[in-house]
Amino acid sequence: MTYTPAKDEAACRLPDPAQLRAAPAPRLRGLAAEIRAFLIDHVCTTGGHLGPNLGVVELTLALHRVFDSPRDTLIFDTGHQAYVHKLLTGRAEQFPTLRQAGGLSGYPSRAESEHDLVENSHASTSLSYADGLAKARQLAGEQQQAVVAVIGDGALTGGMAWEALNNLGSAPGRPVIVVLNDNGRSYEPTHGALARHLESLKANGSVAGCRNVFTELGFTYFGPVDGHSTGEIEGVLRRARTLNRPVLVHVVTVKGKGYAPAETDDADCLHAVGTVDPVTGRPAGSGAGWTWTGVFGRALAEVAAERPKVVALTAAMLRPTGLHAMQQRFPERVFDVGIAEQHAVTSAAGLAMGGYHPVVAIYATFLGRAFDQVLMDVALHRLPVTFVLDRAGITGPDGPSHHGMWDLSLLSAVPGMAIAAPRDPQRVEDLLREAVTHDQGPTVLRIPKAPAGGDVAALARMDGIDILHRSPRRPLDVLLVPVGPLAQAALDAARLLEEEGIGVTVADPRWVLPVNDALPPLAARHLLAISIEDGVTSGGVGWALAQACRAHNVSTPVVPLGLPRSFISHGSRTALLAAVGLDAAGIIRTVHDALTGTTLTSQETLR
Amino acid sequence: MTYTPAKDEAACRLPDPAQLRAAPAPRLRGLAAEIRAFLIDHVCTTGGHLGPNLGVVELTLALHRVFDSPRDTLIFDTGHQAYVHKLLTGRAEQFPTLRQAGGLSGYPSRAESEHDLVENSHASTSLSYADGLAKARQLAGEQQQAVVAVIGDGALTGGMAWEALNNLGSAPGRPVIVVLNDNGRSYEPTHGALARHLESLKANGSVAGCRNVFTELGFTYFGPVDGHSTGEIEGVLRRARTLNRPVLVHVVTVKGKGYAPAETDDADCLHAVGTVDPVTGRPAGSGAGWTWTGVFGRALAEVAAERPKVVALTAAMLRPTGLHAMQQRFPERVFDVGIAEQHAVTSAAGLAMGGYHPVVAIYATFLGRAFDQVLMDVALHRLPVTFVLDRAGITGPDGPSHHGMWDLSLLSAVPGMAIAAPRDPQRVEDLLREAVTHDQGPTVLRIPKAPAGGDVAALARMDGIDILHRSPRRPLDVLLVPVGPLAQAALDAARLLEEEGIGVTVADPRWVLPVNDALPPLAARHLLAISIEDGVTSGGVGWALAQACRAHNVSTPVVPLGLPRSFISHGSRTALLAAVGLDAAGIIRTVHDALTGTTLTSQETLR
Repeated sequence: MTYTPAKDEAACRLPDPAQLRAAPAPRLRGLAAEIRAFLIDHVCTTGGHLGPNLGVVELTLALHRVFDSPRDTLIFDTGHQAYVHKLLTGRAEQFPTLRQAGGLSGYPSRAESEHDLVENSHASTSLSYADGLAKARQLAGEQQQAVVAVIGDGALTGGMAWEALNNLGSAPGRPVIVVLNDNGRSYEPTHGALARHLESLKANGSVAGCRNVFTELGFTYFGPVDGHSTGEIEGVLRRARTLNRPVLVHVVTVKGKGYAPAETDDADCLHAVGTVDPVTGRPAGSGAGWTWTGVFGRALAEVAAERPKVVALTAAMLRPTGLHAMQQRFPERVFDVGIAEQHAVTSAAGLAMGGYHPVVAIYATFLGRAFDQVLMDVALHRLPVTFVLDRAGITGPDGPSHHGMWDLSLLSAVPGMAIAAPRDPQRVEDLLREAVTHDQGPTVLRIPKAPAGGDVAALARMDGIDILHRSPRRPLDVLLVPVGPLAQAALDAARLLEEEGIGVTVADPRWVLPVNDALPPLAARHLLAISIEDGVTSGGVGWALAQACRAHNVSTPVVPLGLPRSFISHGSRTALLAAVGLDAAGIIRTVHDALTGTTLTSQETLR
Repeated sequence: MTYTPAKDEAACRLPDPAQLRAAPAPRLRGLAAEIRAFLIDHVCTTGGHLGPNLGVVELTLALHRVFDSPRDTLIFDTGHQAYVHKLLTGRAEQFPTLRQAGGLSGYPSRAESEHDLVENSHASTSLSYADGLAKARQLAGEQQQAVVAVIGDGALTGGMAWEALNNLGSAPGRPVIVVLNDNGRSYEPTHGALARHLESLKANGSVAGCRNVFTELGFTYFGPVDGHSTGEIEGVLRRARTLNRPVLVHVVTVKGKGYAPAETDDADCLHAVGTVDPVTGRPAGSGAGWTWTGVFGRALAEVAAERPKVVALTAAMLRPTGLHAMQQRFPERVFDVGIAEQHAVTSAAGLAMGGYHPVVAIYATFLGRAFDQVLMDVALHRLPVTFVLDRAGITGPDGPSHHGMWDLSLLSAVPGMAIAAPRDPQRVEDLLREAVTHDQGPTVLRIPKAPAGGDVAALARMDGIDILHRSPRRPLDVLLVPVGPLAQAALDAARLLEEEGIGVTVADPRWVLPVNDALPPLAARHLLAISIEDGVTSGGVGWALAQACRAHNVSTPVVPLGLPRSFISHGSRTALLAAVGLDAAGIIRTVHDALTGTTLTSQETLR
């Protein structure tokens, strides 16, 4: 399809679910075209998930025609393919605010609509929700209300999905309809034995009596179904509903369907885009320059060239985690394991037992999927595995389930785990090199989703700690301990505080956990220490520093400046950091508050 | 088999792996009988895993005859079935010390033997380790060294195993042998669609050309194989090895094989036993009385009788978590989802969305398997799900991967999570009732693996906090804040400290996290506050209390007395608690140390 700008007024008069169900079938093709034009027009302007949504236009139309949401339940796995669902449930007018602070969420949102249930954007959960809802319907005697889960072939590689299939398939009297949205891709083509099995099902067509993984697990299988024929999908879904048992409908879709730049994009079919030119599908403006991810990817490729024992693993995110650069040079040493964080971590443990040094590149928010494996499979065995946590800290427009704000809190409890936070691009390479030569246990590097700024020079290195700023001695001296890229805000704050007559030392520990033994003595020479970290404070760097000070009999109060124990909505990283006080102004406020609080009155005499 | 005591001397002359490989086949039947007699004799004396090991005698003999460990790698999933492997690798003489402090581990242990690799006892990891090791062998050009993983049908229901199968089956050039030890059980019979599929494979025999889940995923399938015929297993393993590709060998075994009390035990084939009479298989001595688990199970059944919306979930641990009592009365409201903690949590989220109040009973140590689901699927959606964490804190003879010492640290970061720690049996029921009526988000109850002692009465309830002890006013007053059953040690310490002239308040917050707002003002009236918790201190109750005190401008120092950030070996719960200072003597030591430290000198003037 050639791109033609959407007529916004028309698109905003999209039918509601009841109107859609009543619409004559011939109207649907035109409606699908209108929706596609609308999506291209708006998502290219606001940024967002494009390819996945273009692929499910007809499928979503069919779902809303066959099922009566919200009485029937529609669950979208991962949720980034719910834009069409949003358009059909009264949210078209809000699309100009997509993923912006206060605007439309990029995922289902219960605050937005009674048609939305699951807000978490982590993959592979939908079948488990469906199992629980189906059990609730059965207990309540409400099985006439359908439970439908839409899950991609990528998400089906996640272990949770297997656990759920094992449960769903064992209860023939508990109806659930699993719609497998098979576009053959996560970001890039889906790897693994299941993907090959699905290819074979697609190649061989629907043969009566043919057994496959799903039928062996107790499902009635319908497929393959053309995912761009609303009529065909509708027909199968209606049959599936009448069976009142576990059914899997295998729908074949094309990611990016109907938009040439997406269909032909080798990387990921324009999976998620920033602002792009709708005609070409290329980024608008001058291009973004280096990101932290890119810096890491380039550094890893260099390190891999020097160290043949370095290997890398990704859970279906080769490009988004920067591993592409290493993979181009050393394809046999980079492993994509599917959307399978647990397996990524424990197979890395196996590689380490086999003499290699694995680098597991994973989004910080997905680390929780493999905490047990990090703790028990890697740390208990003191294996040299390096975890590179991308999108650490406040991430931005993807909202509460994408902010990488739990990792420090989780990892601070793991015995033998050393955590580094590079403050600038140069430090990414330095710390990566230190991490891959550390052979006594696991290491972590956490990097943000942000443009990589300039280098932040150190005045001096002191016992492994980089001193970034040191005021001439003042009556009131404050120690700032920023984590990673928050160093710049700490420096900005330091200069302003100095003008007020408050002396400031800014110390970047580089390896932030466990606490460097030289930090408590440094804190002791100050009236106050403040950690600055974009993670929940519980169990974070500030708490650990306070504990270390106590252990060293240092009575300098430590104030942890970090994220509150709450879920944080979507918005820009800069705005969100400012909103929680993690910018220069916020740091200054924290210093003022702490200096005027009781800590000052009770501690001043100690100096 | 009728039980006949083993001749210890003979058993201790078991062959080493090289001798075993050279042994004539007719010798094996006698050897198997000797090993069984040895196991029954010793495990009935020391306690330990009995049923699983009796089931794998012939299988383990065959594995060590076909493969040359440690050059070839044998990985035992979960590891509780590795006793025979231990006997065949030179550890028979140490069996009298099994699971005792300083003695033989109940799981593989790298410190014990070069034949052991994986020490973690959490299920479903072996295939991922095997995948990593096989990748390392391939990269290093050492593929003539075999990688063999032995996994039970129960462990195969865990999602990690699926993730690994998806990877293993996709690499025809990377040989791994998966030995499926199918005894049809986890503790109780394995549930789910996969179990039914395995039953059908067993019933239909090995039909040439027959497709099944494993062949569809790229494995060569051999089976079903009689798991009690060493010769048959050996033959198949030798063929599997020659194929140099991913192979799954489906071995059918009988849990508890050769020991009538185990084979006929309805509950779990004597899966794990304390000290038992070897003739009858029944607990030796007078019986253990109520455990905390039993108290919870009884309370839950009562609560379920009163509240029809209460449902319960277990990950293949119906009896070990106490759910059996509820299941007998309300079978349709108790769900066993397999060894699938992720699915347990998210299907509970689905049940909660459907209007029910799920109680997920799970070992504390396994919570890490589902942290992401607790955070994102339950807490983000503010769903009323109650988690009952059994075996919380120091657990005892199962060692580092069974101690439930990470849960407080993990959960303290979860927004909206309320955590209760009952101090005595009466409080289990009280707090469970409070938890299931809490409808604003998730709740946790944590209970230990221990005999349930007597009730610990409160002097008064103050803003939800139970005051258990209050000294007459002394010059030096200390506040002790014990978590759950550590209240008794705190009380014992309080009485002894009082005799020394140190005043003590013992306050049980009951709901330990988030910190009760009344606790900082209470701490303010003391010179020192000490939290007493059997979890890692990082992010635990003491740290949270210190943070709350700071927020309330309370300058009383808070000392967190908890577990160190390290893995703790096996031993008895009582001895291990004493070793880390979590008994009355340890609490007293901590009070003395803190009062003589700088905290005293710097804070005394504040009073």
